[in-house]
Amino acid sequence: MNYDQIYLQAAIAQAKKSLREGGIPIGAALVIDNTIVGLGHNRRVQQDDPILHAETDCIRNAGRFTAAEYRRATMFTTLSPCAMCSGTILLYGIPRVVIGENTNFRGSEDLLSSNGVELVLANNQEIEEVLRDFIQARPELWHEDIGVLDA
Amino acid sequence: MNYDQIYLQAAIAQAKKSLREGGIPIGAALVIDNTIVGLGHNRRVQQDDPILHAETDCIRNAGRFTAAEYRRATMFTTLSPCAMCSGTILLYGIPRVVIGENTNFRGSEDLLSSNGVELVLANNQEIEEVLRDFIQARPELWHEDIGVLDA
Repeated sequence: MNYDQIYLQAAIAQAKKSLREGGIPIGAALVIDNTIVGLGHNRRVQQDDPILHAETDCIRNAGRFTAAEYRRATMFTTLSPCAMCSGTILLYGIPRVVIGENTNFRGSEDLLSSNGVELVLANNQEIEEVLRDFIQARPELWHEDIGVLDA
Repeated sequence: MNYDQIYLQAAIAQAKKSLREGGIPIGAALVIDNTIVGLGHNRRVQQDDPILHAETDCIRNAGRFTAAEYRRATMFTTLSPCAMCSGTILLYGIPRVVIGENTNFRGSEDLLSSNGVELVLANNQEIEEVLRDFIQARPELWHEDIGVLDA
């Protein structure tokens, strides 16, 4: 298991924690200088909060850093980052994102790439299955989370 | 005073509230069907929270809405929205943004426009001056807030 896999496992554990709480199973970990400085997961259900996706919750929990510190960071997330989370990554100049899977949802990867962010896709089957099962069970909650009109 | 000015005044009042709290003077108001459903302001200083810009704090305070409801919304913000806040606007499909000023900072206006979001620039001199004075007084805090390396 390489370092990226170790950090990604921490994000996956956050996704599973969210699922146990009755929430949307997406998790994230922020790593600076090979140290996990924050963990987070989607808290739409748990806190009725539309801005707490896994990545934003993680950046929040990590606390305040200078721009210089964020420029040494990697964001680990179980799911391809949406427009909000990608924008947050761009705002702070986080240069690298490790993505668990992008089969259930492909976020703003092109925007990130075109702004020089390095993307690493892990294609993690376990977390893909966890989210796929959730989306099948709760489509209306999933649509709310990604701003998609219900069918 | 037209409706837009009334709503923008609520955002400006939030910016001034943040300043009185010792925080960064940027405010926002979210309007759906001519009703202010949420107010917010930057809370980096007040809550040590890097994801609470005015617009995200406002969306959070407004609570959960369906995608259909966000599609009838206008975001009023005293400052041109950064990458994070623009991404949040795009995630939820908010179709219109009224911007107090973009002289102190010009955010991701091109990204918003190219995704079909209508932008209205108010060129409000009062709020521009409030933020300009703040940036002069606290440049390091301002740089942290927009992810810019200190000189």
